[in-house]
Amino acid sequence: MKKVARTVLFVTILIVLNPSLILAQSDPLPSWNDTAPKKAILAFVDKVTKEGSPDFVPVAERIATFDNDGTLWVEQPMYVQMRFMLDRIKQLAPQHPEWKTTQPFKGVLEGDMKAVAAEGEKGAMQLGMATHAGMSVEQFQQIVSDWLASATDPKFHKSYNECIYQPMVELLAYLRANGFKTYIVSGGGIEFIRPWAFKAYGIPPEQIIGSSIKTKFQVTDGKPELMRLPEIAFIDDGPGKPVGINQYIGRRPIAAFGNSDGDKQMLEWTAAGSGARFMLLVHHTDGEREYAYDRKSSMGRLDKALDEATAKGWIVVSMKDDWKQIFAFQR
Amino acid sequence: MKKVARTVLFVTILIVLNPSLILAQSDPLPSWNDTAPKKAILAFVDKVTKEGSPDFVPVAERIATFDNDGTLWVEQPMYVQMRFMLDRIKQLAPQHPEWKTTQPFKGVLEGDMKAVAAEGEKGAMQLGMATHAGMSVEQFQQIVSDWLASATDPKFHKSYNECIYQPMVELLAYLRANGFKTYIVSGGGIEFIRPWAFKAYGIPPEQIIGSSIKTKFQVTDGKPELMRLPEIAFIDDGPGKPVGINQYIGRRPIAAFGNSDGDKQMLEWTAAGSGARFMLLVHHTDGEREYAYDRKSSMGRLDKALDEATAKGWIVVSMKDDWKQIFAFQR
Repeated sequence: MKKVARTVLFVTILIVLNPSLILAQSDPLPSWNDTAPKKAILAFVDKVTKEGSPDFVPVAERIATFDNDGTLWVEQPMYVQMRFMLDRIKQLAPQHPEWKTTQPFKGVLEGDMKAVAAEGEKGAMQLGMATHAGMSVEQFQQIVSDWLASATDPKFHKSYNECIYQPMVELLAYLRANGFKTYIVSGGGIEFIRPWAFKAYGIPPEQIIGSSIKTKFQVTDGKPELMRLPEIAFIDDGPGKPVGINQYIGRRPIAAFGNSDGDKQMLEWTAAGSGARFMLLVHHTDGEREYAYDRKSSMGRLDKALDEATAKGWIVVSMKDDWKQIFAFQR
Repeated sequence: MKKVARTVLFVTILIVLNPSLILAQSDPLPSWNDTAPKKAILAFVDKVTKEGSPDFVPVAERIATFDNDGTLWVEQPMYVQMRFMLDRIKQLAPQHPEWKTTQPFKGVLEGDMKAVAAEGEKGAMQLGMATHAGMSVEQFQQIVSDWLASATDPKFHKSYNECIYQPMVELLAYLRANGFKTYIVSGGGIEFIRPWAFKAYGIPPEQIIGSSIKTKFQVTDGKPELMRLPEIAFIDDGPGKPVGINQYIGRRPIAAFGNSDGDKQMLEWTAAGSGARFMLLVHHTDGEREYAYDRKSSMGRLDKALDEATAKGWIVVSMKDDWKQIFAFQR
């Protein structure tokens, strides 16, 4: 009895002195306000994980797919991978004196983005391949890791892999704790995301789906390598997302999370399956703590998918209203 | 004391009456003879899973890749998927009266394989696309499942998904019980394998890597579908295997299992990683219980990879000598 009494006293002290400690244990999504989106998430997870529920989904089929840019981390004022590409052109310039006089490289080096834009898609492809191809997969991942270790976001002055949305990190962990397998399905490059996604989001390399360039197996001086070739293999965006999901997972997600028109087909594909479904869009409404943009943004435009979400009752998260906190560093 | 005595008696009876029951619990690979390959497998798993061992590998990195045709199931007298294709041509013929007079279809319908072969790669592609494209992914998987439910192997008169190697099924389960993630990496079609691989091998759809054709997301009458297009996306064979492994897994396997020259690069890629490695080839040496073939076979030729295995000390399993049992139905 004495021991029990001591325990009761101890717990009482804990509750009195630090109610948030107790609260945190019971709330898997502490950075979410108690508004409709959080309630919808909790209700969905509850019904698909409750054995005997008509909406129960076996663990093996609990697949959740997440867009990355603008859904899990910042995509303004430009996609992080685009910033990487421009920085990398500058880093490589001393080895390419011809870039000083050749567009689109000249434009990048002089900060003349109009000249770069004038080169159109062909110019973008030239920049992409000059920075993403011509090395082994391992070398490329090292280049990305090195860059990320030193680059900082222009608004928050933090590493890019700190500019991730704390509510979404909590959501990923909450889903996994409930037997979900969480995947990234990004228009960005698969090998650009793999080096840091586990540390940032707890998502391992085999659960990253993204755009890719071709690679070639070759043996150089007895050492097998996978060399990255200057040729697009797959664009994992818009209608490419369901294609990528099927190619990699071979199952239809039961929950999908995005923030832009590039995620529209992924959410449609998810919604069209049978049984309980969950579709969510992150709406960037917080110009103060992050950015406010939607229908007219050139990065992460949210227009048609927003209309569809409204029409079909998909969950739309207002970052301003539904997220208590956006970044861990803003705590 | 009485209870303990009863338990001892019960266990004694079990041992006396059925020693294999006790043995089975302690032996994870009962269909393997106690020869070198089995010892090598047990020693490898032991050292990579023992914490503190210099060869310890964290669970997340315990990736094992398996070829399918000839490594996990029968590939003689022809690849199962090839049999599917020929059967399917016959099934579809009534809807294609023009096939009666057009090669390579005419050859298939008349059983004239010489005429089919004369049409070369173009002919093979025509047969492949006529049977594998033009339907949704779901429809194709249903077609494969329906075919498998009725087709039988010509030598063993069993369903194809019973013609799987019991020692390899045990090996897959043993590796998984030790924290490995097991993948199929097949030259065969990814969607041809996915419908039945979990039931046969315990390998889920997201752990199947294979050759693929392109798919397209389209919305028909409000219903989103992934349509299979008559265009090759990826050939997962030979040098394509390391490419596919990187594309899907983003990690290098620590163990790889094959049976033919098409697996050579997968084993080389696996061998070239740092730390403990395990490379194994299944050698078809049992003409009585299965088939005997290697350097001159047109299906599953094992020639260069056999030389490389000998030179590099990879494990070569002789099915005749190293496997106590080949199929579960031969028990």
